[in-house]
Amino acid sequence: MEPTDIKQALEQFKEGKLGMESILELLDPPPEVSLGYAHVDLHRQQRCGYPEVIFSQGKTPEWVEGVVEKLLEAKQDCLATRVSEEQAQSLARRFPQGEQDRVARTFWLPAERKRDVKGSVVILTAGTSDLPVAREALVTANALGAHTDLLADVGVAGIHRLLRHRQRFVDADAIVVVAGMDGALPSVVGGLVDCPVIAVPTSVGYGAAFGGVAPLLTMLNACSANVVVVNIDSGFKGGYVAALIARRAAGKPA
Amino acid sequence: MEPTDIKQALEQFKEGKLGMESILELLDPPPEVSLGYAHVDLHRQQRCGYPEVIFSQGKTPEWVEGVVEKLLEAKQDCLATRVSEEQAQSLARRFPQGEQDRVARTFWLPAERKRDVKGSVVILTAGTSDLPVAREALVTANALGAHTDLLADVGVAGIHRLLRHRQRFVDADAIVVVAGMDGALPSVVGGLVDCPVIAVPTSVGYGAAFGGVAPLLTMLNACSANVVVVNIDSGFKGGYVAALIARRAAGKPA
Amino acid sequence: MEPTDIKQALEQFKEGKLGMESILELLDPPPEVSLGYAHVDLHRQQRCGYPEVIFSQGKTPEWVEGVVEKLLEAKQDCLATRVSEEQAQSLARRFPQGEQDRVARTFWLPAERKRDVKGSVVILTAGTSDLPVAREALVTANALGAHTDLLADVGVAGIHRLLRHRQRFVDADAIVVVAGMDGALPSVVGGLVDCPVIAVPTSVGYGAAFGGVAPLLTMLNACSANVVVVNIDSGFKGGYVAALIARRAAGKPA
Amino acid sequence: MEPTDIKQALEQFKEGKLGMESILELLDPPPEVSLGYAHVDLHRQQRCGYPEVIFSQGKTPEWVEGVVEKLLEAKQDCLATRVSEEQAQSLARRFPQGEQDRVARTFWLPAERKRDVKGSVVILTAGTSDLPVAREALVTANALGAHTDLLADVGVAGIHRLLRHRQRFVDADAIVVVAGMDGALPSVVGGLVDCPVIAVPTSVGYGAAFGGVAPLLTMLNACSANVVVVNIDSGFKGGYVAALIARRAAGKPA
Amino acid sequence: MEPTDIKQALEQFKEGKLGMESILELLDPPPEVSLGYAHVDLHRQQRCGYPEVIFSQGKTPEWVEGVVEKLLEAKQDCLATRVSEEQAQSLARRFPQGEQDRVARTFWLPAERKRDVKGSVVILTAGTSDLPVAREALVTANALGAHTDLLADVGVAGIHRLLRHRQRFVDADAIVVVAGMDGALPSVVGGLVDCPVIAVPTSVGYGAAFGGVAPLLTMLNACSANVVVVNIDSGFKGGYVAALIARRAAGKPA
Amino acid sequence: MEPTDIKQALEQFKEGKLGMESILELLDPPPEVSLGYAHVDLHRQQRCGYPEVIFSQGKTPEWVEGVVEKLLEAKQDCLATRVSEEQAQSLARRFPQGEQDRVARTFWLPAERKRDVKGSVVILTAGTSDLPVAREALVTANALGAHTDLLADVGVAGIHRLLRHRQRFVDADAIVVVAGMDGALPSVVGGLVDCPVIAVPTSVGYGAAFGGVAPLLTMLNACSANVVVVNIDSGFKGGYVAALIARRAAGKPA
Amino acid sequence: MEPTDIKQALEQFKEGKLGMESILELLDPPPEVSLGYAHVDLHRQQRCGYPEVIFSQGKTPEWVEGVVEKLLEAKQDCLATRVSEEQAQSLARRFPQGEQDRVARTFWLPAERKRDVKGSVVILTAGTSDLPVAREALVTANALGAHTDLLADVGVAGIHRLLRHRQRFVDADAIVVVAGMDGALPSVVGGLVDCPVIAVPTSVGYGAAFGGVAPLLTMLNACSANVVVVNIDSGFKGGYVAALIARRAAGKPA
Amino acid sequence: MEPTDIKQALEQFKEGKLGMESILELLDPPPEVSLGYAHVDLHRQQRCGYPEVIFSQGKTPEWVEGVVEKLLEAKQDCLATRVSEEQAQSLARRFPQGEQDRVARTFWLPAERKRDVKGSVVILTAGTSDLPVAREALVTANALGAHTDLLADVGVAGIHRLLRHRQRFVDADAIVVVAGMDGALPSVVGGLVDCPVIAVPTSVGYGAAFGGVAPLLTMLNACSANVVVVNIDSGFKGGYVAALIARRAAGKPA
Repeated sequence: MEPTDIKQALEQFKEGKLGMESILELLDPPPEVSLGYAHVDLHRQQRCGYPEVIFSQGKTPEWVEGVVEKLLEAKQDCLATRVSEEQAQSLARRFPQGEQDRVARTFWLPAERKRDVKGSVVILTAGTSDLPVAREALVTANALGAHTDLLADVGVAGIHRLLRHRQRFVDADAIVVVAGMDGALPSVVGGLVDCPVIAVPTSVGYGAAFGGVAPLLTMLNACSANVVVVNIDSGFKGGYVAALIARRAAGKPA
Repeated sequence: MEPTDIKQALEQFKEGKLGMESILELLDPPPEVSLGYAHVDLHRQQRCGYPEVIFSQGKTPEWVEGVVEKLLEAKQDCLATRVSEEQAQSLARRFPQGEQDRVARTFWLPAERKRDVKGSVVILTAGTSDLPVAREALVTANALGAHTDLLADVGVAGIHRLLRHRQRFVDADAIVVVAGMDGALPSVVGGLVDCPVIAVPTSVGYGAAFGGVAPLLTMLNACSANVVVVNIDSGFKGGYVAALIARRAAGKPA
Repeated sequence: MEPTDIKQALEQFKEGKLGMESILELLDPPPEVSLGYAHVDLHRQQRCGYPEVIFSQGKTPEWVEGVVEKLLEAKQDCLATRVSEEQAQSLARRFPQGEQDRVARTFWLPAERKRDVKGSVVILTAGTSDLPVAREALVTANALGAHTDLLADVGVAGIHRLLRHRQRFVDADAIVVVAGMDGALPSVVGGLVDCPVIAVPTSVGYGAAFGGVAPLLTMLNACSANVVVVNIDSGFKGGYVAALIARRAAGKPA
Repeated sequence: MEPTDIKQALEQFKEGKLGMESILELLDPPPEVSLGYAHVDLHRQQRCGYPEVIFSQGKTPEWVEGVVEKLLEAKQDCLATRVSEEQAQSLARRFPQGEQDRVARTFWLPAERKRDVKGSVVILTAGTSDLPVAREALVTANALGAHTDLLADVGVAGIHRLLRHRQRFVDADAIVVVAGMDGALPSVVGGLVDCPVIAVPTSVGYGAAFGGVAPLLTMLNACSANVVVVNIDSGFKGGYVAALIARRAAGKPA
Repeated sequence: MEPTDIKQALEQFKEGKLGMESILELLDPPPEVSLGYAHVDLHRQQRCGYPEVIFSQGKTPEWVEGVVEKLLEAKQDCLATRVSEEQAQSLARRFPQGEQDRVARTFWLPAERKRDVKGSVVILTAGTSDLPVAREALVTANALGAHTDLLADVGVAGIHRLLRHRQRFVDADAIVVVAGMDGALPSVVGGLVDCPVIAVPTSVGYGAAFGGVAPLLTMLNACSANVVVVNIDSGFKGGYVAALIARRAAGKPA
Repeated sequence: MEPTDIKQALEQFKEGKLGMESILELLDPPPEVSLGYAHVDLHRQQRCGYPEVIFSQGKTPEWVEGVVEKLLEAKQDCLATRVSEEQAQSLARRFPQGEQDRVARTFWLPAERKRDVKGSVVILTAGTSDLPVAREALVTANALGAHTDLLADVGVAGIHRLLRHRQRFVDADAIVVVAGMDGALPSVVGGLVDCPVIAVPTSVGYGAAFGGVAPLLTMLNACSANVVVVNIDSGFKGGYVAALIARRAAGKPA
Repeated sequence: MEPTDIKQALEQFKEGKLGMESILELLDPPPEVSLGYAHVDLHRQQRCGYPEVIFSQGKTPEWVEGVVEKLLEAKQDCLATRVSEEQAQSLARRFPQGEQDRVARTFWLPAERKRDVKGSVVILTAGTSDLPVAREALVTANALGAHTDLLADVGVAGIHRLLRHRQRFVDADAIVVVAGMDGALPSVVGGLVDCPVIAVPTSVGYGAAFGGVAPLLTMLNACSANVVVVNIDSGFKGGYVAALIARRAAGKPA
Repeated sequence: MEPTDIKQALEQFKEGKLGMESILELLDPPPEVSLGYAHVDLHRQQRCGYPEVIFSQGKTPEWVEGVVEKLLEAKQDCLATRVSEEQAQSLARRFPQGEQDRVARTFWLPAERKRDVKGSVVILTAGTSDLPVAREALVTANALGAHTDLLADVGVAGIHRLLRHRQRFVDADAIVVVAGMDGALPSVVGGLVDCPVIAVPTSVGYGAAFGGVAPLLTMLNACSANVVVVNIDSGFKGGYVAALIARRAAGKPA
């Protein structure tokens, strides 16, 4: 709340145009729901353009379900990532209307009102083994309301494969590039396009790949200036930010 | 070579104006200028929306000047980063019309035709010592044609400073957050806005800051979903990508 | 024993005021019990204010029980941490009067005489997945005789949640902040209070969280001056030191 | 400000007992001074018990002096750490009444009103080369209003030196242990006392000391439960937290 | 081939008892047995004072047995370390006369002729959980022919335990100190004795112990000059070198 | 598309047999087969001298089989590495004519036409436990058409074993040296021969071997100038490059 | 000592021309020259195809000159790398006939007899700043007798630059690819050729380039199977091995 | 002092056979001298067989001299290591009778009474650049009273150099092997001898040598069982422990 708004509200309050309850609500921090094990941030959608997303790792199925329930009660979209097999089964029983993607390890249950889909996100992978991470990006970008396209296995060892399909990604609003091992693909893609490239290193590989450290460093040092990086295996963040950019490019979110 | 040129060449070939050898030579990659020590990529602006930027570190002043000259001849904008004191002096003598920022260590010499400025980028720093990196971001975002605003020293140890100035960044199209040491600022900022946050870790700090590794890891693990990361001290990439996003949000680049 | 005390004692001994047994006890190192596989330090309580705590990892159930038994015989409080499922079952059979916390993986069996509880420790967690570590801190601080309060899932991505509940922790004598991933919470909390903040990094997260290295580094570089750090996942040390500080603030231990 | 207080204030405001200016001030975030390159947090003393401390590294002498000036104008204590030789000379000219410690690299200029000194902090060093870091701890703990004592070069290779001087530290309210290389001293000291031990790793040593990483890890893994750790070479944080604990033990800060 | 053998061969050659071809063949490296998957070095005992020791990790039970068999045929002592449960059972069936230590994961089958035992090795552990590594050291030192003594759980958090038992290790010819977590014990022990201390870091601990890296670094930086280090968890090397030193101190090996 | 084909097409175009649209379509990247989850690079053999090799890790059995099928259809050699037990069984059922090596974890199914075998590759291992990686090198070098020889367990602790067998490797065209732990063997071998040595570090060992990092660093720092390095445990690359060199030495590939 | 010499000596011995002592002395390792601070390996050329190369770092100018002198006396080629400015001046005075390359930091003085030059090595760099390392490779490959070609600044951000010049490297016998920062170039080049690619990571870059660690890891994980790696900044090894391969491809060395 | 001895002494004291001064001396901790900045441990020689050695790094010349003076007053040998040029000059002026080794950076001033020299230590270096560290080992071993021999530049790339000089080190009581880069020498030497090998990694090398980390890891993983390791560049510890072992082998220290 802005100082000038506060002043105006106070004046209205003094003049009786605003009741005690109303002004307290106005001066108050935004809504949350306390569950003991969680404080669900119901104001996230308003501040950040999308509701709180559930990071399921390290939580009991009950905890995950508890948060899902509160989001649904508040009529907000519900997306959970890193859903284990046990959590997935439990969620399926409780919320059969949710969409589960076993490869991406996601659970998605949008609120009733339809969202318009806009902006274009293309997801590329260097290899076939990067697909699970790429699908997490895809599901997330869809959930945020972007158009998506996935182009797999166009790594740089066969550079013509990438160049041949250039038309599929050159007009995107944002590109997510998912790659393990040498992580070289984002550098090359970045040099071919004029939109931001979100690089997602994966833990695919062995030995000196060090669980994704090698592609992470490659991507942080990408010689193309339009490449930014997210955490290892975080298809979620890759898809999230790409969708934010794409939607913004296609017109500001309401 | 552009598709229309290829078509034209093919027609000339068919008409016999172009021999087999010549046309084979022409079915060719886009223009570049070879300088022996460098191959200046004059097609970058067309592909990527901005010309090749000169990374000056490890180059002789002559090498830097040689590339500047070729970009100017091609009537392209010229931005050089990581300019040493020796390079700066040499560039100032040779190209007095260029803008130098000693704090940001940049040299900027735009081509004659004016660019329209659009989109809003806000740059925040956690501390005062992060200012040189922040200024590199500022100069770069300006060079790319975005409106910029810089808000310094609003780190999380005095969280009210950040909240008080929320209005200055909450409507930005993209935010660059520059922070060293604990690198906690992007997580907090990310939770307050609906646009992408480009986090730039700096080498400010000592001991277990490990030259910027600590804030780099913090930012890669940011709990806010809209945070992406670039290389340590890379104000350049921070400003570059933020401007790309902002311009796109304000209308596609021509 | 101080030289002057020794001299005095020797004089008393020569004069016959002190028997051989008494003076030997005075000159002797403090008591311990040898079990072959362990030397139980029965003097720890006197020196350090709390008996030796059993670190159960890597021990057979028999070894753990053997030490428990010796502590009980010496009428000292008994706390065991990192208790595996197998050890827990074995301890439950042998010492049914002990309190087990399956989430915290602790076993607690205080000696008979009641301790007065004093000083206030508040434990905060950034996320729900940090709860097991937080509970280890809670059990430990309770065992040491401090009042405790636990506030979960108030991470910085929804900063209003933390600010809203400020009253619950602002008057604490010591605060334990448990956080994984970006580990940003202690920096923010530290800037809101005037007591020491014990930061406990957790291994929650994936990829570049590197099993807790990321939050560990964040916390070591916290921009708030009142933040100290303990080992990754060491809820035990967090609760232990917080209780030491709190009890001391509430009046020196006897 | 608490909801109940807000309500009361609003009622007083409505009744005219509180003017617009007063209520706005009450609802407003705490004071700060903006200097362009810095936002000086003048509310820190009230929230955290001590004013903002100036981290001088990476700042121009003018920036450091600008913040010093604002703190003095606000009649707050002024402590600057990591003061370079150039900054020190500049500060000495401008604020000759400040106390400079060239070994500790600190500048200290307390506000006029006297503070009562209470609580006891003892600082130990493993070797002679650890003295600069230890002195930074000493100056800081003094600045915060604690009694201090410094005992140098009592490392564990000659364990009798430590045991002989036990009386000097066994009754402290908090102990700062400064050690490089193997960093083994805090573990031993921790086992001899009942107060918190703040371990400060130093970059003293070479080779596999890795600039302080070796003692940092040692201390994080200290087998004594009362040991907490701060950043490498951070005598400042060591002294700061020790003084917080000591003052609290000797009676709550006003 | 031994120098005396060469001389003899040369004499035989001169006398014509040995042809040119034969003597060229004989001027040859020392004996080995080739098994396809292994080249058993039967000359090791002569060169190094003890036969080749079998590192069992990553080998099939058949491979381990094959090497054991060849050593026995050559009438050499046979020691195998890192013996898995599967390998242990297989060895027990095939060589029931061998001594197996399940805790140490060793298999030992000395050749028939008795060795005289001499020199004194003492093995200390910081904690109870370090016992498996300590036992590997014990078995190895015994196998090499040294007198051994094992003193467990005398870590530095209760320094009096170590000092009380000083007499048990102060006259040793070599001391093996086995410790995980902070790895501080070798520094203290080194300062109490005049013989070499072989420090063995263990992977006991969690979090920032990093699987033994923390104690490894501590030990490499030990402030006592008589401390040397071997690989993490390598009780084998600790015991081996200690026995070499002890036997040498008690009179050169034959 | 091959240069000769381009030429032919151009001629057809000139003659009017090919329309503008058709020839533009033909001036095209080389052939590939798209499978949704993979883009099989059928041009690899022509460009690189060997078809695409399947990295099986992280792929479903169906994905692996799909690519095998496309390679066979294109009458290209098919080699798959890192084949899991599940994949191996599935491949065996589907392509019983393929050769499986369970130790090397490879599947090999050459195209019908016979390749001439030429050039000599020798593979050495430091220990018996390095054999699985060495066999992967062997299978790969065979697949590429080189003569191979494998000499196991000739590590430097018994240097005479290596020297005795020098004749077996001194005339090789390329040598693959597979070693874990200290990784010292390539340095010694490199000093004995005049051909390139491909060093393959393995994850054999424990503790400070850090999963192969120790031998990797050793090999990168080899004091012999003819030593190059590949990824940890990458017998595949070791054998691949050695065969490339050997075939080239024995006459250029067609 | 050569086999034929051994045979001759044995014959002389049999004939009594050589005493027992003399022949024992002669059955001896190959020639070397001892200089106190160095043992110059004069047999290296025979064993390895090129004489010992002088690594100048950390040596006094006198030590470097001493070794140069002994190589020249033995009529062997002399190549020194990592020559400091001080060493270079000293060498220039003493051996004015030597060739110095200030950028490559090399000194080269071939023996009199001419060597035939054969085999083709192409050296590529990703950026202009990689040139010093590339020149070290060039000088070394020349010294070993290969034809060389250097193509600078063809990094992957402008992939068409690389593709346009494909003809210059596609027929090489071996390619050296020198790259810092993301180190992505070798992966792409490897996919375009059928010869081995020697990847040389450089310390060009900043921040998360970690002095060359980033491109080193990228290259070790290169998705192209024909890529091998040498130490960071080791243009020397890159050029050395490439020349070995090229010469071998063009006909075995004499 | 043992309990039984204490008892006996007390009885003698009571009977008047032992005066107060005598019994206090017996019960007292060992002597030290306090200098404010240092507690000189004058009892070290008695406990550890050699007086405290001065680690000069990070100390003012005055501090170094102060400790030297106290050792000389106590008639103890004085050895200082890591002596900077400034400290060396200051020591030379004050104690001209001391022996300085500029390469080893040591200062040595033995007490008057002569020590008998016994036991044999041989020091090997892999390269010429390792000489400074090797000389520190030499000076230290001499100071401790061992016979020493130094053999430089016998690295494994020319293995015959090592084998040729085997006789010089095969009968040593302890061998110090100093090596940087690949650090492979200790593994080979260890396999040739029956005495302990103290491996000293050096920071010689560049790139992936990581300031000595590469040889450190190599040595910790040495495949020869008799290899132990000390800190990077610690010629001091190498020489110290080797001398301890050698003297012990040649007869127990008095």
